[in-house]
Amino acid sequence: MNKFVDLDYVPKKEDLICEFSVEPSENLSMKEACNRIAKESSIGTWTHVEHLNKEKRDKLRARVYSIDGNTAKVAYPPELFEKTNVPGTLASIAGNIFGMKALKNLRLEDVYIPASIDNAFEGPRYGIKGIRDTFGIEERPLIGTIVKPKVGLSSEQHANIAFEAWKGGCDVVKDDENLVNQDFNKFEERLDLTLEKRKKAEEETSETKGYMPNVTAETEEMLKRAELVKEKGGRYMMIDIVTAGWSALQTLRKHGPDLRIHAHRAMHAALTKNKKHGISMLTIAKFARLIGVDQLHIGTAVGKMEGEPTDIWEIEQEVENKIVRKHEDDHVLAEDWRDIKPVFAVSSGGLHPGLVQPLMQLLGKNIIIQAGGGIHGHPDGTRAGARAMRQAIDARMKGIDVEEYAEDSEELKKALDLWGAGKTYK
Amino acid sequence: MNKFVDLDYVPKKEDLICEFSVEPSENLSMKEACNRIAKESSIGTWTHVEHLNKEKRDKLRARVYSIDGNTAKVAYPPELFEKTNVPGTLASIAGNIFGMKALKNLRLEDVYIPASIDNAFEGPRYGIKGIRDTFGIEERPLIGTIVKPKVGLSSEQHANIAFEAWKGGCDVVKDDENLVNQDFNKFEERLDLTLEKRKKAEEETSETKGYMPNVTAETEEMLKRAELVKEKGGRYMMIDIVTAGWSALQTLRKHGPDLRIHAHRAMHAALTKNKKHGISMLTIAKFARLIGVDQLHIGTAVGKMEGEPTDIWEIEQEVENKIVRKHEDDHVLAEDWRDIKPVFAVSSGGLHPGLVQPLMQLLGKNIIIQAGGGIHGHPDGTRAGARAMRQAIDARMKGIDVEEYAEDSEELKKALDLWGAGKTYK
Repeated sequence: MNKFVDLDYVPKKEDLICEFSVEPSENLSMKEACNRIAKESSIGTWTHVEHLNKEKRDKLRARVYSIDGNTAKVAYPPELFEKTNVPGTLASIAGNIFGMKALKNLRLEDVYIPASIDNAFEGPRYGIKGIRDTFGIEERPLIGTIVKPKVGLSSEQHANIAFEAWKGGCDVVKDDENLVNQDFNKFEERLDLTLEKRKKAEEETSETKGYMPNVTAETEEMLKRAELVKEKGGRYMMIDIVTAGWSALQTLRKHGPDLRIHAHRAMHAALTKNKKHGISMLTIAKFARLIGVDQLHIGTAVGKMEGEPTDIWEIEQEVENKIVRKHEDDHVLAEDWRDIKPVFAVSSGGLHPGLVQPLMQLLGKNIIIQAGGGIHGHPDGTRAGARAMRQAIDARMKGIDVEEYAEDSEELKKALDLWGAGKTYK
Repeated sequence: MNKFVDLDYVPKKEDLICEFSVEPSENLSMKEACNRIAKESSIGTWTHVEHLNKEKRDKLRARVYSIDGNTAKVAYPPELFEKTNVPGTLASIAGNIFGMKALKNLRLEDVYIPASIDNAFEGPRYGIKGIRDTFGIEERPLIGTIVKPKVGLSSEQHANIAFEAWKGGCDVVKDDENLVNQDFNKFEERLDLTLEKRKKAEEETSETKGYMPNVTAETEEMLKRAELVKEKGGRYMMIDIVTAGWSALQTLRKHGPDLRIHAHRAMHAALTKNKKHGISMLTIAKFARLIGVDQLHIGTAVGKMEGEPTDIWEIEQEVENKIVRKHEDDHVLAEDWRDIKPVFAVSSGGLHPGLVQPLMQLLGKNIIIQAGGGIHGHPDGTRAGARAMRQAIDARMKGIDVEEYAEDSEELKKALDLWGAGKTYK
């Protein structure tokens, strides 16, 4: 009866593979639960239906080829999918199955995307190297800030704070995830004023600076805003990939102007936080890389937001590397990214200069370190906060303990006095 | 310290209101947890930041005005939002807060949308009345089917099965959520062949019939497919609203052709199934109505998919009525829908003729009853399955018990023999 379970099946490299954590409802075996998942997410329904001959059924059905405790791996023949269609693909592998009564909990942990689908996407336009080249920064982490408070500032205040942050040492400044085109801070005015200040900051610091305006909106409006950014000399556009959705992200990458894409993940935790049910951040990150964001929030492991250090490390590996090897605890399917460029991982959420040392111990140098409150909340204001952050990063780049380095760095000293100094992420 | 908690605050009718279920992390009081939710989802961050004067802070901050057990209600001043921007609004009220370490679990249970936002949207183009007028069906539920198997059929097979379903008595036939534009069944060919069969079925039955092709894709491609449907004489477009996302749904309603929108909710349960964490289906349904889908899947309470009868009844009330009164168990915020038309609720997922009686007891006549396997899996095939379904509905409309009615209805009898007859939803 379990036609969709075939533990002898050896997945082909052309298959799309999903790893699920499965908790069957009472009185249902793991095997039967897995059978229903593979059935509902490929060609089956709950009762017998003629119409498809055996040959076609055998060709198109998903196969559960591994069951280990509560972990199941399912192989999907690539013919099941329209290669260029992420929302269409997710409607199969992450669609109705979450709502089946047969399951108490279901979590899509990971997905292996085969070459045929990879080849249908362009991936990031810039990726890590392109971003580093933009700024001429070869090795150190990029430093970013989010203008704070999140919303409420006028366009002019916004631009002035951005200037202070750049002047103090930030490379990039971004809008917050919920700042879009409010009456008190209209998108176009904010863009104009902030890009003006960017120019000034670049002239005064002789550094390249980036402004990441949030273009999240209805798709056509979003494209208009993105074009406006390009027209006015911007280098970046930022989008809330989860609230905007996969169709719009594909559109922005495919039909939007030649700008770097910064991906914020607000709302992801509604899907990712519960360890038994939903969709892992790793899965979201893989689809975001496939479509082609250049920068993606992956968490901090040390700040105000959820996320275990190992999970975040894994996501960084996944978005930044070419081939991810099978991980010991078996939670990462090996993925060969072929020509798809690496994504610059962004660590953001409750960070401050005192957390840079443990953060870089965990995630290395190839990250964008963003702090909002941890820069603007500095006792001497935004510019000093940005200096303190850059000093903390300089300390780590030179291999000097942050507190030692602070002895000669006034702004860093004050930041550590206020927020404390983390030594290690453990 | 809890500046965002103000239990004396009386929400203004202009405020947007969210009801959350909150489970604070250990060692954190409910009050402090709620304070952080309101802060992070409006103007605050985790540390003190100057930049905003008191007047503006008071004007723009969210206020927790009610805490009752684990339920909190938060009022958001409408100025916080760009009125026309659903993804931007969700990035506030359903964004970062899900990932805060301060919370073990958080669920957005309900949202009250104020007039200023309602007025920025057009809502459904047709709604229940427009759909009923299309078919000239005044009172009985509409009968629909999903062509099954979900994927794998050729375009020609697909069209033939649709014909059988229409001929047997279905009003509408839809693609499944994961059928888009696969190589074995290309969108345009399927559309052509199926609309041809629709015409034939209309001629032979003298009834109006509807075909709901799944246009889910990258947004520009989706619009192209929608235009193609319109051009070729279609009346409907179907979209997977959760996997495609809010930006694309807004685009389809605003810039898509004049077609009825059928909304499938695949992946919703990744957000809605856990009763402690995520986003309720009620909330998703409200935003879908606001943007303007004409038909929305709400569950069955009796079939293969998750969903408690009371929840599903509540969602039906919400999408179909003008004003929803505060519910006794306090889980529905009163919503005045003003000029926004009602959405036709679609009940789908594991239904068959034997479940029509309990389903209609629960949800009444104003529903679209869809069955896939429960029609095509009939021992005598699709046409007989559609007949059996229509007979079951006729029985209920005449107030005759389904088993009694089956005595003179051969197809219904066979269906009940195979799948059983439900008498009541309790």
